[in-house]
Amino acid sequence: VGATADAYWNFAGPFGGYVAALCMKAVVTDVRVLGPPVAQTVNYCGALAKGPFEITTRIPRGGKATQHWSIELIQDGQVAATATIVCANRRETFAHQAVAMPSVPPVDAVPRMKSDGRLPWLSSYRFHFIEGGPRFTPAGEGEPLGPSKTVMYLADHPARPLDVVALSSLADCFILRLLQMRGASVPMIPMSTVSMTTYFHAGPEELAAQGDAPLLGVADGKRFSANFHDQHMDLWGRDGGLLATGIQTVWYKA
Amino acid sequence: VGATADAYWNFAGPFGGYVAALCMKAVVTDVRVLGPPVAQTVNYCGALAKGPFEITTRIPRGGKATQHWSIELIQDGQVAATATIVCANRRETFAHQAVAMPSVPPVDAVPRMKSDGRLPWLSSYRFHFIEGGPRFTPAGEGEPLGPSKTVMYLADHPARPLDVVALSSLADCFILRLLQMRGASVPMIPMSTVSMTTYFHAGPEELAAQGDAPLLGVADGKRFSANFHDQHMDLWGRDGGLLATGIQTVWYKA
Repeated sequence: VGATADAYWNFAGPFGGYVAALCMKAVVTDVRVLGPPVAQTVNYCGALAKGPFEITTRIPRGGKATQHWSIELIQDGQVAATATIVCANRRETFAHQAVAMPSVPPVDAVPRMKSDGRLPWLSSYRFHFIEGGPRFTPAGEGEPLGPSKTVMYLADHPARPLDVVALSSLADCFILRLLQMRGASVPMIPMSTVSMTTYFHAGPEELAAQGDAPLLGVADGKRFSANFHDQHMDLWGRDGGLLATGIQTVWYKA
Repeated sequence: VGATADAYWNFAGPFGGYVAALCMKAVVTDVRVLGPPVAQTVNYCGALAKGPFEITTRIPRGGKATQHWSIELIQDGQVAATATIVCANRRETFAHQAVAMPSVPPVDAVPRMKSDGRLPWLSSYRFHFIEGGPRFTPAGEGEPLGPSKTVMYLADHPARPLDVVALSSLADCFILRLLQMRGASVPMIPMSTVSMTTYFHAGPEELAAQGDAPLLGVADGKRFSANFHDQHMDLWGRDGGLLATGIQTVWYKA
């Protein structure tokens, strides 16, 4: 049982990363947890209103290697989100990173986005855009689409040491691709994340070593069709390790 | 209620795509379904044994735009898989494909893999490898890792017209990246998909237009760490449309 926090408010409710973090926290703080999380899927069924909510957790199946959790976030008797989280008994094994972090300037060389007076959740993070970025002004008639890709530094604000709860929320800190490409409109065309899946490559030691240093985030989308588009993302740590990777699908009205 | 089909057998149970297709079929043939699926996540909790099983479906939340399904596949009183599927009332909207199908030779110019006598599920599909491919023989000592990427044509065998049930299974037809990279070993190191998420870009008309022509599939992995690796995939239709995109996480023992 909890209550919504205003600092993570988006248009019509808390931004999706906050909901992901709530579900993740419910699992990793549960005494039954087998080990660190590997995978999380959150389905956003309806916007949360300000006020109290309840999180229910079940373990449909658990073994020595993996543990499967099913989570529901309920408010006023309605399911606002469902989620599944896979935890595991993770040990050292064959390890290999097949991709390299993009070559980018240091964070100090990239201006920080001013978020004053905009959506509250934007002020709960620091954003330093290297490539792509939000367009808060309406796009002009006949203006070409903006880029689908974003490369940015991002971090919690105020700063906090990285852990898997913070990471599950940072995975949703990329502006929706469609908004970046088309720019804002007046009135805003409704759009929201409907489902998000994040895989956690880094274990607790690697996350702890990151401290409160900004992550490098890369996001892009592939296809926009019949009310939905996909959006994939990578989050890199300061030593070039791929901490998390994921994908989300976004509903848009028109 | 159903029973497992031998034609889709893998090492220790039916291959994961078969389970995904069973869950998808349960939803799209249900009279309550709102519209075509947008997203599917399947969590593989334990191997299915040969024999009967039961699929339970719930709709935790449904609206005019989206409908959220929760599914469990149960065998002998144990949950073998959980899944969530989002269906939607999909209409024509802004449409854009930000990526292009890779330039590849026609399917007739690419040899078909012989799968006789190997795992049964391999014979339920046709595979034509353009880049990357399975290594069924153990890798030699000190041999370099194989490629993480695969580009291939794939189709149901015997041929059948494409629909979303077949597509949800085709999304899991890529050999596990780790197996491709390290090659088979004797004895085999246990590995299996633990969670898979697929997004469906194409609606029913676009799938019907594909008929039984092979799809072009591209898969790759990013990081292998502490018993798990990710694997992402795209499935392209014959007119260069991105029909589906997805991601999975794979457990491996060592």
